[in-house]
Amino acid sequence: MKDFIVTPWEVKGNIDYDKLVNQFGVKLLKDNDLKKLKKITGELHYFLTRKIFFAHMYFDNVLESYEKGEKIYLYTGRAPSGPVHLGHIIPWMFTKWLQDKFKASLLFQIPDEEKFLFKDNLTLEQTRKWAYENILDIIAIGFDHKKTKIFLDTDYAKTLYKHACMIAKKITVSTAKATFGFNDSNNIGEYFYTSMQSVPAFLPTIFEGKPTQCLIPCAIDQDVHFRLTRDVADKIGYPKPSTILCRFLPGLQGMQSEGKMSSSVQQTAIFTTDSPKSVKEKIMKYAFSGGQPTIEEHRKKGGNPDIDVAYQWLTFFEEDDKKLEKIYNEYKSGQMLTGELKQILIDKLNVFLARHQERREKAKDLIDKFIVE
Amino acid sequence: MKDFIVTPWEVKGNIDYDKLVNQFGVKLLKDNDLKKLKKITGELHYFLTRKIFFAHMYFDNVLESYEKGEKIYLYTGRAPSGPVHLGHIIPWMFTKWLQDKFKASLLFQIPDEEKFLFKDNLTLEQTRKWAYENILDIIAIGFDHKKTKIFLDTDYAKTLYKHACMIAKKITVSTAKATFGFNDSNNIGEYFYTSMQSVPAFLPTIFEGKPTQCLIPCAIDQDVHFRLTRDVADKIGYPKPSTILCRFLPGLQGMQSEGKMSSSVQQTAIFTTDSPKSVKEKIMKYAFSGGQPTIEEHRKKGGNPDIDVAYQWLTFFEEDDKKLEKIYNEYKSGQMLTGELKQILIDKLNVFLARHQERREKAKDLIDKFIVE
Repeated sequence: MKDFIVTPWEVKGNIDYDKLVNQFGVKLLKDNDLKKLKKITGELHYFLTRKIFFAHMYFDNVLESYEKGEKIYLYTGRAPSGPVHLGHIIPWMFTKWLQDKFKASLLFQIPDEEKFLFKDNLTLEQTRKWAYENILDIIAIGFDHKKTKIFLDTDYAKTLYKHACMIAKKITVSTAKATFGFNDSNNIGEYFYTSMQSVPAFLPTIFEGKPTQCLIPCAIDQDVHFRLTRDVADKIGYPKPSTILCRFLPGLQGMQSEGKMSSSVQQTAIFTTDSPKSVKEKIMKYAFSGGQPTIEEHRKKGGNPDIDVAYQWLTFFEEDDKKLEKIYNEYKSGQMLTGELKQILIDKLNVFLARHQERREKAKDLIDKFIVE
Repeated sequence: MKDFIVTPWEVKGNIDYDKLVNQFGVKLLKDNDLKKLKKITGELHYFLTRKIFFAHMYFDNVLESYEKGEKIYLYTGRAPSGPVHLGHIIPWMFTKWLQDKFKASLLFQIPDEEKFLFKDNLTLEQTRKWAYENILDIIAIGFDHKKTKIFLDTDYAKTLYKHACMIAKKITVSTAKATFGFNDSNNIGEYFYTSMQSVPAFLPTIFEGKPTQCLIPCAIDQDVHFRLTRDVADKIGYPKPSTILCRFLPGLQGMQSEGKMSSSVQQTAIFTTDSPKSVKEKIMKYAFSGGQPTIEEHRKKGGNPDIDVAYQWLTFFEEDDKKLEKIYNEYKSGQMLTGELKQILIDKLNVFLARHQERREKAKDLIDKFIVE
């Protein structure tokens, strides 16, 4: 009996991340790993100290190579099937931080064929439209255009397809079934797709003409693709890509009711293009509260920040540890009410989104500097 | 119990073409079909009257569209894994004739990934090298460069891959297993490949922006791919491609011992780059003879042209029906000896190859006019 499901195409239930780490065979990020990282970066992103990025595979290889003076690449992606919400940009914010700290080149894949292949009612024209919308959000994160290539799979296929074939040759249908839970009624494009997601992990080595480390910051549901990539790497003599993995930003209605924020359920998500008014309404109306039913009871018993979505979201968006601790204590003690806590989040997000939306507008003029075909 | 096997990847045994037609669910070319064709072309290629091209699917649709004044496309291909032999160029010679007669645009696919995916010991670098060698032979056939696009799948993937995904979405693993005899130990690239072979059948409609007939001249083993293509066409609202199908040029050692000429067995094949001396040696030494063990016996009983490879090859290469009939009768009566028959073939082929090799040299300067990426 499983009480949660995490695959690249479905995330459901109240996720037990410790169980997930075992199930996926990845490693928790240990204090010692963070110490080594801090030696390089000088400081640690709060996503690390708060264990939002909490697990990895072969991250030590990246640190080792970097310390030897070798070039490091980053690779992440976004499957375009709808608007970008706040959950999507968490790994991108962290990727931007890594790019700055490691002066790293970044490959940003837009697999416009992926959701098309997996969803009945989605056309390639629709995913292409979303691709361009989503790229504006990606550019708005602030990546260095001199070090960043963004590409749609279908447009960049001249570079990707031949390497995908090299990878596909090493993956049997049997392995794909065991890895992704496919069966004979899945289409042949769904089976092949994982090889397209693998390719950018090898492009650093191909571009540099020598073994080059690739670090993939992403949500933990994607690691399963890269597990296959690592098996193939062994077989074709490329370095194994490493991953650094994050939790999901919970949906507005709470961690119990859904696994992660979902673009397809309006009430669970705040989108990067939402207006301040809409942000306020959604949070006030939908954000699951850890508070008590009445003010009197709340003052007496206090709130539960650990299940309160507004508080949980602040752990993703409030950089200042001290402010966050203060909020935690005041809410837990009953001194701060749910409405007040929600208002703090609303203000925080609206400042964040105002800046993001401004950059997103400017991104329209920058798009050609980022896209490769 | 099967006494022969015909798949896109394996042709073995003494092929019963009538059985094959039933097995594949294709149609024999009837006199009435040829009559309709002749109304358009004015004459019939001897490949048709001799039933070398002998079967089809939906060929009538092509004739109908052409008669309405609509544009017709041709599509054929060559999977590059070795040198071109005489068996390969039979469908190309016929395609050239169709191009002239129908003033048709031709898409010539070089699926450089196909044999790579299906053969353990072949690299993409090797298939690419063969691709360029093979393209010289293709150009030497005399196609009109203003009406012909030749492309390698990996180089043309920007155009092909997105349409391949549209096709792949409509083909389940279960269907691919039933169609090609695959199982779970085949790799995911082998499964996906058929969608790449389907794409050029739809490119005419995509290029023209309206339903456009595509005729595929090829050997009968390839029809199985296009059976899937036709199923998908129905599902995505494209016109079904039609095929016109040929028999195999038998290998030198005869129709009983092997199914078709094979590049991997030197003694069965004559290559387009073979020297006159080599052609003579191979035919004298290896061509299976329908003659009698001794001259005396041969003079008395006569030879059997129906199993004699030299005679069979002449049905592919001697255009003149009367010359061919004379040879048939003289050999059958015992008047012509095996050595004499072989010498006729040798002379015929060496004239043919001298001209081909000259054109093949010139093709080196024409290659850029044909290739699209």
